[in-house]
Amino acid sequence: MQVANSPQKWLYFFDEGVSDKKLLGGKGAGLCEMTSLGLPIPQGFVITTEVCEEFYRNGQKLPTGLMDTVLAAMSSLELRTGKKFGNPEKPLLVSVRSGAPVSMPGMMDTILNLGLNDSVTEGLATLTGNRRFAYDTYRRFIQLFGKIVLGVDEDEFAKLLDGEKRRRNAKQDSDLDADSVRRVSESYKELLRRENKPLPQDPAIQLELAIEAVFRSWMGKRAIEYRRQYRIAPEQARGTAVTIVSMVFGNMGDDSATGVLFTRDPSTGVRGLYGDYLTNAQGEDVVAGVRTPKPIADMQGEFPRAYETLEQVSQKLESHYREPQDIEFTVERGALYLLQTRAAKMGPMGAIRAVVDMVHEGLISKEEAILRTSPEQLEQLLHPRVDPSHKEIPIATGVPASPGAASGKVVFDADTAVEWTKKGEKVILVREETKPEDVHGFFAAEGVLTSRGGKTSHAAVVARGIGKPCIVGCSALTIYQQSRLLRVGGATITQGDTITIDGSSGSVYPGVVPLLQPELKEEVFELLAWADEVKTLGVWANADTPEMASKARKMGAEGIGLARTERMFNSEERLPIVVSMIMASTEEERRYYLDKLRPLQKQDFKRILREMHGLPVIIRLLDPPLHEFLPRLEDMLEQVEKLQQHGDEKQLVQAKRMLDKARALSEANPMLGHRGVRLGLTHPEIYEMQIAAVMEATAELVKEGVDVKPKIMTPQVALHQEVKLLREQFEKVRLLIETRENVKLDVKFGTMVETVRAALDADEIAKYAEFFSFGTNDLSQATFSFSREDAEAKFLPFYLEKGILSDNPFETIDEKGVGRLIKMAVESGRATRPDLEVGICGEHGGDPRSIYLCHRAGLNYVSASAFRIPVARLAAARVALLDRAGN
Amino acid sequence: MQVANSPQKWLYFFDEGVSDKKLLGGKGAGLCEMTSLGLPIPQGFVITTEVCEEFYRNGQKLPTGLMDTVLAAMSSLELRTGKKFGNPEKPLLVSVRSGAPVSMPGMMDTILNLGLNDSVTEGLATLTGNRRFAYDTYRRFIQLFGKIVLGVDEDEFAKLLDGEKRRRNAKQDSDLDADSVRRVSESYKELLRRENKPLPQDPAIQLELAIEAVFRSWMGKRAIEYRRQYRIAPEQARGTAVTIVSMVFGNMGDDSATGVLFTRDPSTGVRGLYGDYLTNAQGEDVVAGVRTPKPIADMQGEFPRAYETLEQVSQKLESHYREPQDIEFTVERGALYLLQTRAAKMGPMGAIRAVVDMVHEGLISKEEAILRTSPEQLEQLLHPRVDPSHKEIPIATGVPASPGAASGKVVFDADTAVEWTKKGEKVILVREETKPEDVHGFFAAEGVLTSRGGKTSHAAVVARGIGKPCIVGCSALTIYQQSRLLRVGGATITQGDTITIDGSSGSVYPGVVPLLQPELKEEVFELLAWADEVKTLGVWANADTPEMASKARKMGAEGIGLARTERMFNSEERLPIVVSMIMASTEEERRYYLDKLRPLQKQDFKRILREMHGLPVIIRLLDPPLHEFLPRLEDMLEQVEKLQQHGDEKQLVQAKRMLDKARALSEANPMLGHRGVRLGLTHPEIYEMQIAAVMEATAELVKEGVDVKPKIMTPQVALHQEVKLLREQFEKVRLLIETRENVKLDVKFGTMVETVRAALDADEIAKYAEFFSFGTNDLSQATFSFSREDAEAKFLPFYLEKGILSDNPFETIDEKGVGRLIKMAVESGRATRPDLEVGICGEHGGDPRSIYLCHRAGLNYVSASAFRIPVARLAAARVALLDRAGN
Repeated sequence: MQVANSPQKWLYFFDEGVSDKKLLGGKGAGLCEMTSLGLPIPQGFVITTEVCEEFYRNGQKLPTGLMDTVLAAMSSLELRTGKKFGNPEKPLLVSVRSGAPVSMPGMMDTILNLGLNDSVTEGLATLTGNRRFAYDTYRRFIQLFGKIVLGVDEDEFAKLLDGEKRRRNAKQDSDLDADSVRRVSESYKELLRRENKPLPQDPAIQLELAIEAVFRSWMGKRAIEYRRQYRIAPEQARGTAVTIVSMVFGNMGDDSATGVLFTRDPSTGVRGLYGDYLTNAQGEDVVAGVRTPKPIADMQGEFPRAYETLEQVSQKLESHYREPQDIEFTVERGALYLLQTRAAKMGPMGAIRAVVDMVHEGLISKEEAILRTSPEQLEQLLHPRVDPSHKEIPIATGVPASPGAASGKVVFDADTAVEWTKKGEKVILVREETKPEDVHGFFAAEGVLTSRGGKTSHAAVVARGIGKPCIVGCSALTIYQQSRLLRVGGATITQGDTITIDGSSGSVYPGVVPLLQPELKEEVFELLAWADEVKTLGVWANADTPEMASKARKMGAEGIGLARTERMFNSEERLPIVVSMIMASTEEERRYYLDKLRPLQKQDFKRILREMHGLPVIIRLLDPPLHEFLPRLEDMLEQVEKLQQHGDEKQLVQAKRMLDKARALSEANPMLGHRGVRLGLTHPEIYEMQIAAVMEATAELVKEGVDVKPKIMTPQVALHQEVKLLREQFEKVRLLIETRENVKLDVKFGTMVETVRAALDADEIAKYAEFFSFGTNDLSQATFSFSREDAEAKFLPFYLEKGILSDNPFETIDEKGVGRLIKMAVESGRATRPDLEVGICGEHGGDPRSIYLCHRAGLNYVSASAFRIPVARLAAARVALLDRAGN
Repeated sequence: MQVANSPQKWLYFFDEGVSDKKLLGGKGAGLCEMTSLGLPIPQGFVITTEVCEEFYRNGQKLPTGLMDTVLAAMSSLELRTGKKFGNPEKPLLVSVRSGAPVSMPGMMDTILNLGLNDSVTEGLATLTGNRRFAYDTYRRFIQLFGKIVLGVDEDEFAKLLDGEKRRRNAKQDSDLDADSVRRVSESYKELLRRENKPLPQDPAIQLELAIEAVFRSWMGKRAIEYRRQYRIAPEQARGTAVTIVSMVFGNMGDDSATGVLFTRDPSTGVRGLYGDYLTNAQGEDVVAGVRTPKPIADMQGEFPRAYETLEQVSQKLESHYREPQDIEFTVERGALYLLQTRAAKMGPMGAIRAVVDMVHEGLISKEEAILRTSPEQLEQLLHPRVDPSHKEIPIATGVPASPGAASGKVVFDADTAVEWTKKGEKVILVREETKPEDVHGFFAAEGVLTSRGGKTSHAAVVARGIGKPCIVGCSALTIYQQSRLLRVGGATITQGDTITIDGSSGSVYPGVVPLLQPELKEEVFELLAWADEVKTLGVWANADTPEMASKARKMGAEGIGLARTERMFNSEERLPIVVSMIMASTEEERRYYLDKLRPLQKQDFKRILREMHGLPVIIRLLDPPLHEFLPRLEDMLEQVEKLQQHGDEKQLVQAKRMLDKARALSEANPMLGHRGVRLGLTHPEIYEMQIAAVMEATAELVKEGVDVKPKIMTPQVALHQEVKLLREQFEKVRLLIETRENVKLDVKFGTMVETVRAALDADEIAKYAEFFSFGTNDLSQATFSFSREDAEAKFLPFYLEKGILSDNPFETIDEKGVGRLIKMAVESGRATRPDLEVGICGEHGGDPRSIYLCHRAGLNYVSASAFRIPVARLAAARVALLDRAGN
């Protein structure tokens, strides 16, 4: 890219080799650039943004002498095209286009076909042998010029056109014949005269007025509002350039055509021309859909030269822009012209395949491939989605609120959702909007669809929280709650009818639509392998079973950051032992049951450790309070009641005993209660069993020659004294088993940092803990004093909707509060123990923005659920690259 | 005080004018100082702590030449006393005493009556005409010397004495005659010979060995443990000095006496000699209680000269030490000697009266008076306590764990406590130790008494938490739980017997003992007025009613820091309206009931504001979640059950509706749920009503000419956006009522800072809040992730006992975590709004150490419950003085 040297120069031809976006605007610079590449671009020139600035400095007047320069340029254009501006015999028509340094699509004005007047139109008719085409073009020009330049109300033109159509009994514009079209153009001119703004017949005057109008549109309402909305600072976008391009026509006969193509298939990413075209047509006709376009391959027969050129052009443009392109072209009498090229909008798999291929083709670097792939794109591949090869037409589209697709029978309330699900049905919960009392329906349903609300509505927040597909604000639906039916378009859907929803796109389909189950193609793994080369943050997985560990390893996990031992307590054959342990009234009795659990836990640990051989595995000691392992209080009350009426004595006594225990253990705020390390310290025999089981598992595997890297971590720590006491217990058990088994046990000891107090006590805690793992779910709950389950059901949606919170802090780490605590803890922990290993486990570990924060806070790894690992690897690589570049 | 110049000097006579505590130890320096004051002190000298250091450097050997110097000093002592060391005709006896720079009472050894041998004892007998006295003194000397210097087992001496008593049929030592006592002394000597450690007959050798023994006791087990416990650093206490004092005897006839006196009455503080004495007796006899001592006033007749001297001495010592003194004295043949003086241990009221009087007497400054009064002393006056004029003898004494005294019938389990209380009985819960399942008994009982546990046991922590008197670790009690009785000494107390416990002293009394209700004497208010002059921290009160406000104002509150509006919702006539409001299904319906509440709230606010005219009143908007106003879920379940069996249809429908509502509102962790500002924002009509009620109350009072300073504050804030929205609502309501009432409303708007997130967002929050009030109870819960009620019942006692926590963070602000958050919030809040007013409300506001922290964090005020205001005023003054002095 070259930069203009002379600030005095008012305009540049496309072929002057200048392509300064700031000076020429995006569109102007693009056309110059393509011209420089030797591509077939219509002739033209750009009036600079500096002129626009001058225009506003001058009180909205063009600089003196500008029009002389422009008209001289027009003469030059006449020479270059062999056409003449205002000459009926070989008329030069131009488009006058806006284009600012910062893209503002549709916000400013453009005038096409400028240069037409009565005589030129007649000439065009003769020249093309197509009178209707000539007058239709004239009519369109008058309308556009009248509206934009002369400020005449658009509706007035529409009325005149409708009148003619009524008189001629024409249904569509295309039903009007040449004379009718001419009459319309006459009536338009008459309209302008009546408004005292006659159409200038002098093309030079047309041009001057059009240039002024484009400059004025820079300060139009829409443009100002757009810049305010997107926070485009004045210094970023100093004004608009004006690009003047000679018109080319794809409708000059059967040797002309127009079309659109992609340089790679947007859904698969496979390289090759992909698109449609129409012979003897203009761009508008393609859009209008009157005629069915032909596949681009057909051009090989019909326009072999143009096709060949298109192939070359595609390659050239991709080489130049190093992105798949979306190209508009016109063939005018056999000659190919490119009207526009831009980055192609690719589907998620297409985008990834394209960047991977482009690396192999040498077009881009691996780093660029990573930076071009958004975690959101990758995320879409991780959920079921509608098969793009099945071209179903949605019956409605709403706001995509929670990704993934699902089919099911429509139900209109949560209770029915639960009821039908119990009977084995799959259901989609459909409501106008949801409320806290509907939450049980979310758990039952495959997905949720509402006719109201936005991305932060209750339905959206809750569905994302539990990972179900969800569409909200689907306003095309009218729901008749009482009648259990909904209407959409002309159709009626009643309870029990099947629909499919795609929470990634917002589309609602009737019936069952084939879904693609998430499956990662080879190219994704290739991209992720490159990501691994650049990322510095480790990506580990949360996994409680060997099966999950295996899956995580396949997804690229470099370790297990969280293996929850309570899940192992909860399995069917163990729960009775756990309950007996809880019901025990003495430590001895508790130990009796714990001794039964110990070999089971040892087997759990052996299997996970073996699965993850060579990689670290962090096993977390028991976290939840004991009452969570007992039946619900309300159920127990009911059972006692029942037994009292007609049960046997012994059962009643037992049930009452358990009820008493549950009451004694019950807590006002269990999240902040007697759990985690607090339970571990007051009931040391429980953690002792778990630590011993890990040590024994390790000893046995070491003897088998398996390379294991076990780590034990304690939850809910608030105080370094807690960690100190546990560390002592840990070392005692290690020594015991090392001695007994005669083997060295390299097991690390660390702690969760999930209370605020622990984050503030990190310097002392690091004396006893070899690693930290941030539990950002609990830490966020404590920092905000929000109980997540209560908050998401009751007030978080309202908070997000009102903008009180910009993000759900349980999805994306709150930087100001929680982020600050994390940074403080990392710094003070490492001040004590420079090699302190620090990670994060919990859902935030799979959230891209949270991963950026973790990288920047200097964490060693993030740990996420297995299916989010690809996203995490990509995000970790991106932040490493961004920070390397100093952004 | 003078400091010694020559470090080589090994010893100092009392009258050398040197009183360097570091060099001479506390006791030695004291005797030197009193000698300097011209008081009648026995002659003596001090061997310095430097010699002790030398002794240890030397491998526990006295420095060469020391004994020569000591013996030369003994010769000088002989000259001064006219007695001779080892001379039977006018024997000089001495005591050899330990005494380190830092007081370590009872931790090191002292030997009395040194200088006795066989012939000197005979001489003493002749001289005093009291053979029994002489041999008894000899016996005691041999025993003490044998044990301390020669290391002979104490029990061996006791056996010999017991043997003689058995043979003579003597019950007590005093029943033995002179011959018997002589025989015992002979048997003691024989014992030493048998052990091959005969008593040296040469007093010089006795002296050398005794000096070594005292030095050795510096490194005795007890002394080392004491220094470790009290964290006395080696550089603070380099060793012990040895003080050698010539013995004086109060038992040399009827012209001799011994006694103890206070210079002011320790319980009332009234100035004047206060104490007892015995004629012809030794100190031990007073302690033994064999003879009933006479009141000190009787000395006016019996020993007029000595009494007059004592009066002068008292005044001199008070002038010198500027503290009430506790003086031991002996009259030997008419001559008065002071043996010791020390700061008198005063009762709480005595101490305060004394310092106030001493300010009036010009002895100390007001600042000193404040610094000498501990908040704990003042605190004792704020609880009921045992009337000190009733000289009841406790049947047992335990660890004072929670202040205040109470009488009640003994019960041995929590259920009985609840049952009996329902019948109108007052009970004291007595147990070996308490557990979480006993907590309901704490609420029922007047007080709690346990036979086990320390200050951090479950019973202690829970009782302090709810403010009930409690004694723990009263090991003299043997509790027979099954039999519902306890034994103490010889007595038996059964369930239903009345006892009185004094949680401030740890004393347990049988029956009902008269209690003094807390009543603050004039002197206390005088002291507090001085405190107000120096403190910079405001002391406000938490008060929800006009009555509480009035009480707080009398206690010296300078404002109301917390008026909870939910308490106003809870009163009997309003709760039905509140419940109807909660049950409302639309906002309109809610508003209907809120409109009914509004005039009631307005009256509440008017009454409090009027009561506090001229002073600020902070009214907090509704805090608890709505479900707290509904009946308990379990009760509702029961009612529905009952109605289903035999109730009328309409009632059943209503009950079910309420149950459904309660279920919908129920939360997993209500502390972190839908409450405070979260409720205020989602249900804006509630806060709107409350704000309007405050504004209307203000408008009406302003029109009446009352000077009011209302402030409104919002609870549970986590985000500045919450505060921004509420501020907007506040201003809207203010404008509305200002316009309607045509009066300017100076109402301030502020926020609680009781979530961690708010503390970290303080810079932004301060843009919208004019003041902060730290809610340290909730902030501590969130910081630790401890639910207070669960923690105090379940694991906090364990944590305190094990030293995992050194203080209960709900009683004293945790400096490292919560204190740091407070400091951060104050700094960043003031960075935004330099005049931001910052205070603290909640129980910590009445805790002295928390008040120190608040002062140092730069808070403007603390707000405490009315009855803790005196303590807060004193603490605020103390910290201001301490910090002024640069400590």
